[in-house]
Amino acid sequence: MTWSSSQGRLSGQAGSAKTQSLNTDGLEMLFRPASVAVLGASIDPSKIGGRPVRYLKEAGFRGRIYPVNPKYKEVQGLTAYPSVGDIEEPIELAIIALPAQAVVEAVRACTAKGVRAALIFSAGFAEIGDEGRRMQEEIASIARSSGIRILGPNCLGVMNSRNGVIATFSAGIESGSPSGGRIGFVSQSGAFGSHCFAAAREKGLGFSSWVTTGNESDVEFSDCLAYLALDEDTEVIAAYLEGCRDGDKLKRSLEIAHENRKPVVILKVGASEIGAEAAASHTAALVGSDEVYDALFRQYNAHRVRSVSELLDVAYACTAGTFPTKGKIGLITVSGGIGILMADAASTAGLDVAALPEPAQEKLRRLWAPAAVRNPVDTTAQPLNDPALTSKFLEVMLQEGGYDLSINFLTHVGLSKPFADRFRALLAPVRKKFPECVAVVSMLASPEVRKVFEDDGFLVFEEPTAAVAASAALVKIGRGFTRASKAAPPQPSPSAKPIPDFPLNERESKLLLSEVDIRVVEDRLAQSAEEAAEAAEELGFPVALKVASPDVRHKSDAGGVVLGLDSAPAVRKSFPRLLERVRASAPEAHVDGVLVTPMVEGGMETILGVRDDPLFGPTVVFGLGGVFVEVLSDVAFRIAPFGEQEAHGMIREIRGYPLLEGARGRKRADIAALARTLARLSVFAAENAGRFDSIDINPFIVLPEGQGAVAADALIVPKADVR
Amino acid sequence: MTWSSSQGRLSGQAGSAKTQSLNTDGLEMLFRPASVAVLGASIDPSKIGGRPVRYLKEAGFRGRIYPVNPKYKEVQGLTAYPSVGDIEEPIELAIIALPAQAVVEAVRACTAKGVRAALIFSAGFAEIGDEGRRMQEEIASIARSSGIRILGPNCLGVMNSRNGVIATFSAGIESGSPSGGRIGFVSQSGAFGSHCFAAAREKGLGFSSWVTTGNESDVEFSDCLAYLALDEDTEVIAAYLEGCRDGDKLKRSLEIAHENRKPVVILKVGASEIGAEAAASHTAALVGSDEVYDALFRQYNAHRVRSVSELLDVAYACTAGTFPTKGKIGLITVSGGIGILMADAASTAGLDVAALPEPAQEKLRRLWAPAAVRNPVDTTAQPLNDPALTSKFLEVMLQEGGYDLSINFLTHVGLSKPFADRFRALLAPVRKKFPECVAVVSMLASPEVRKVFEDDGFLVFEEPTAAVAASAALVKIGRGFTRASKAAPPQPSPSAKPIPDFPLNERESKLLLSEVDIRVVEDRLAQSAEEAAEAAEELGFPVALKVASPDVRHKSDAGGVVLGLDSAPAVRKSFPRLLERVRASAPEAHVDGVLVTPMVEGGMETILGVRDDPLFGPTVVFGLGGVFVEVLSDVAFRIAPFGEQEAHGMIREIRGYPLLEGARGRKRADIAALARTLARLSVFAAENAGRFDSIDINPFIVLPEGQGAVAADALIVPKADVR
Repeated sequence: MTWSSSQGRLSGQAGSAKTQSLNTDGLEMLFRPASVAVLGASIDPSKIGGRPVRYLKEAGFRGRIYPVNPKYKEVQGLTAYPSVGDIEEPIELAIIALPAQAVVEAVRACTAKGVRAALIFSAGFAEIGDEGRRMQEEIASIARSSGIRILGPNCLGVMNSRNGVIATFSAGIESGSPSGGRIGFVSQSGAFGSHCFAAAREKGLGFSSWVTTGNESDVEFSDCLAYLALDEDTEVIAAYLEGCRDGDKLKRSLEIAHENRKPVVILKVGASEIGAEAAASHTAALVGSDEVYDALFRQYNAHRVRSVSELLDVAYACTAGTFPTKGKIGLITVSGGIGILMADAASTAGLDVAALPEPAQEKLRRLWAPAAVRNPVDTTAQPLNDPALTSKFLEVMLQEGGYDLSINFLTHVGLSKPFADRFRALLAPVRKKFPECVAVVSMLASPEVRKVFEDDGFLVFEEPTAAVAASAALVKIGRGFTRASKAAPPQPSPSAKPIPDFPLNERESKLLLSEVDIRVVEDRLAQSAEEAAEAAEELGFPVALKVASPDVRHKSDAGGVVLGLDSAPAVRKSFPRLLERVRASAPEAHVDGVLVTPMVEGGMETILGVRDDPLFGPTVVFGLGGVFVEVLSDVAFRIAPFGEQEAHGMIREIRGYPLLEGARGRKRADIAALARTLARLSVFAAENAGRFDSIDINPFIVLPEGQGAVAADALIVPKADVR
Repeated sequence: MTWSSSQGRLSGQAGSAKTQSLNTDGLEMLFRPASVAVLGASIDPSKIGGRPVRYLKEAGFRGRIYPVNPKYKEVQGLTAYPSVGDIEEPIELAIIALPAQAVVEAVRACTAKGVRAALIFSAGFAEIGDEGRRMQEEIASIARSSGIRILGPNCLGVMNSRNGVIATFSAGIESGSPSGGRIGFVSQSGAFGSHCFAAAREKGLGFSSWVTTGNESDVEFSDCLAYLALDEDTEVIAAYLEGCRDGDKLKRSLEIAHENRKPVVILKVGASEIGAEAAASHTAALVGSDEVYDALFRQYNAHRVRSVSELLDVAYACTAGTFPTKGKIGLITVSGGIGILMADAASTAGLDVAALPEPAQEKLRRLWAPAAVRNPVDTTAQPLNDPALTSKFLEVMLQEGGYDLSINFLTHVGLSKPFADRFRALLAPVRKKFPECVAVVSMLASPEVRKVFEDDGFLVFEEPTAAVAASAALVKIGRGFTRASKAAPPQPSPSAKPIPDFPLNERESKLLLSEVDIRVVEDRLAQSAEEAAEAAEELGFPVALKVASPDVRHKSDAGGVVLGLDSAPAVRKSFPRLLERVRASAPEAHVDGVLVTPMVEGGMETILGVRDDPLFGPTVVFGLGGVFVEVLSDVAFRIAPFGEQEAHGMIREIRGYPLLEGARGRKRADIAALARTLARLSVFAAENAGRFDSIDINPFIVLPEGQGAVAADALIVPKADVR
């Protein structure tokens, strides 16, 4: 996916991503330092300053550990140093576990020593008030000027299970050690990250790297996401986000993940009003509009989830490394009931529960007559007596069903190791024959049994509907991967003019849009009733009259619109009345005249708009006219710019879509023209980022297929502060 | 909840519920027999006929066990009998584990012996074809004539942990014994029931009774549900349903549960087209329309869930026995991030995440300054060092927040017993002080830790969003419990006339409705253009003309409707043209004339309809006119009859509801008149059950508040087969 704003700046496969803002340089020193100093190291291994020393030792960190504490000669069996400057060898990472007041000084000492990266556990910064914010800004400024990378303050640090870098004081690892894995994890919240770490470990799931970003004085969520996207030990990224400081950085980090084919599974909180308020108080970050984040995730193929277990489930499913673009799923079950449950869930999730071809059904019937053989395939509970039935059935299904995914429900088989081993011995060879198919087993299972099935290439889920949801996520992500290349937005039109810095009326707004090939309705500006009647004769009846004034933004509310006039006398009669109403409701407004436009009939009314999102810039919104936008909030968002393919996705997203396709006896609308316009509008908006507050095309009339679409009204509002 | 159809027949608190069809008599002999014979008992304790003998012995069944098998003198250490008739003592329950061909004979032998109930494991009946169906009908007929109760065939039997009746061959109990509990479980599917049994046990959850109904030759799902609703050991009912044979029985069993204040949590599958097809092939039951089941569950306060884990989670939450009717929830968390996540989930689920009063916030701030104190209350991770902080915070919240429910997120605390014990010692006294508040702890926990928290009156959930969902379910169920008494439908109107058995036109349909106090638009039947013009003058302009013909059901499609005529000449002109169009499109139709009606203006168009559901009888459907019904399928269903309160719920259920409330600058519609009409229509429909195919009032115009609502058109179609 390439975007005009970042095109050419992100090389994708490159070892580091540095743009004006996104910066993964030096993060290597956080995740893979050769030497670590612990400032504020404690002799008590349960204290915040004692834990990282203990954890590093226990995890077998292969580099050198230097406790720093002027009170001791030795800390937990290691030589201690009075200050970081006293260490003879070079230090790559400093862990700072000191009171807030001592932190700025410590960071200065680190830069003087030439330390490459520091992570700051200490709380008491921007999250508590002005004095803390000032200290945090000082830290940020040291980072900018010296090039040292700073994680935190107020964070729980970093873990990298591969090289034993357990640079955290999270108690989450007390109850069990981290084990390696292929999921990279980034969380803004330390406690959330810590919880996920423990929850994942309880499920037998390990992380390649784990990082919490806390107050983000320097290193941000997006930097870490980009780092993980470039990290060769990481295949899947799981992320927790409350709000980002810089929308552009987030977009680019997702681009890098996309280019490197690393799925991103993201739990972004703050979707509700209450949640957004809580997020705003929890983090110093700009929270932003949740629906725009949602649009971003759709566009950049980040898979959004809504719970901790879904975050871990989908990330886990992604570790299988297979992302089908088709969603044909074969369901096989020892319980007919669970088969129906899975079929319900799969078809609700948009998967294709396609029937087995008849000859294959016949084969299954011959294997076991009481079975249901269509799909879901119900072996009945017979495999509990004869496990070979399951493997024989599965083989026929995968051989002849052409399924991209399969789920095999085996109830409580996994609770007994000997019993499960019988199934495993039979199923493993079948699984090997069809490596391209995502193969899921759903059963209650001990960790030991789960592990052996996973080693054979199966994903194992306890809850059958979770298995279905994760399968659907793989298909969605797979489709996102292929979509990218075709999604390029159209080139800006050579005739495009920038949005000026003075107020615009309808006519001027339409003119600007017509220059980027957005079709607008013709108009004539009339100064008198007679001129209006002449213009109407020329344009053809019926016509609309609309006040032309840069000061009247809501023309209808001001009485400044008359629709459907079908004769010259009607126009003459309406003209003075219209002006009278406008004068009454907006006496101060400067009136340029009255616009005469032909009525556009026989089309579908839609609304196109652009808002300038404070985080993500120009964001296009689309909906149908009438009750859809106002009553049902049936709208779709996309961040500009985007191409026609994305526009088609946006159009299909709204609930009223069937109306465009010709529901209720209508003609099918010219959806292609609509998509073209949305893409052009998005490019126009992106080119004019920062120059406008809003663009509204309302109504935008989509005519029947082949006849195009046309803006019947439009208003561009230049940015208030540039006027 | 009392209903005209069953009023007076169900006594609710009575020890058994016997109506024309619902029958819990004798089920006691399935769940609590004093003596059990096992027909087809095997000396091999792993065989289907061997397992129940072993299970009964192992579970300490206190009654006598009589193996029946002519091949042996002794089975598993017990004296065996050649036939059931050879047993000297009376037998209350017979377990039949014989080949299908031998079953009918065995059932006969049981009735001859005076056995009270039999359960049949054997498969090979209605599920495999005509011969099986014939045998099953024979069994049903024996049951009817002799009074013996039969469970199955093709079922997994019954368990009652309290008295050691483990009358099943389910392998689900091999991996761990059943333990007692307060949840009664009924499943149509044996394998599903078996899986839930194992899944529940793995979560530390026990069942009071467990029953699977299989082919339901005699005992049906609804009988068992009613039995559990009357069973004193059962406080909560968890159920799995594919489809019922008798809608009335299901309704009545849910009524009994409701009257006895037993929450019913139900997983009903077959919601999707594919799922419904699979269900139809899996069970011989009539599957029926899923949306009507959904309406039934809403009306009868059964809580519908969509996964196995949700089924167990909500049933588990119900065991706390507290069902708040208000949904004010206090969230307290050691992770700000999880707090936001829970707040999002809670407000999405309709719970009230109300802020703590300011003085209470101030108290919390004084306890720990870095905390977020509004709600969600974020203690920060400090309680991991100082557990007393959590209990102090919780006490202030429950004391001063007035919360009906609370969730306390404690991350991985429960993974360490000593650590968890410190929290428990502090939290238990606080919990005791507020017994009326639902108190949930969300944490990762060992089974042992979970148990001790549960003993202190906490519900424990691992996933915080699952804790929220279960909390929301408790409130929904609580509200359902209080709703009942007010839900009585209005009495049938004394002037009501039954729907006749001949075709009706619009005029006759409206007349019937007006007799049950449903307001309809006036009309005049005109035979000529002149008569029509005179009628229009009399009624007042504008008017509509509509063809009056019992043979033209879709008047508009046939060109038989002209709207908005505003003068006598316009009426005269339209009259012959209308008849011409109708003659062209329906040359055979008998035409009674043309109906002249005044146009009803200034109201909101809605659609009221009644379908005759094959399972549940007359079912009312409601939606808004325009795109809502046809494009958005934005409709609500309720099974007739129902009262105005239920009608209000139905009205609020549709997405377009804000339009009735006055969105988009409209006047608020007369929702009370609409609700009144829906309730009256439902009573009219229920009184006429079996006499009609459909009733349509389209449009039904709801005028602004205080002005009522009126049917502008209506058509009643009498039942085809009674004509």
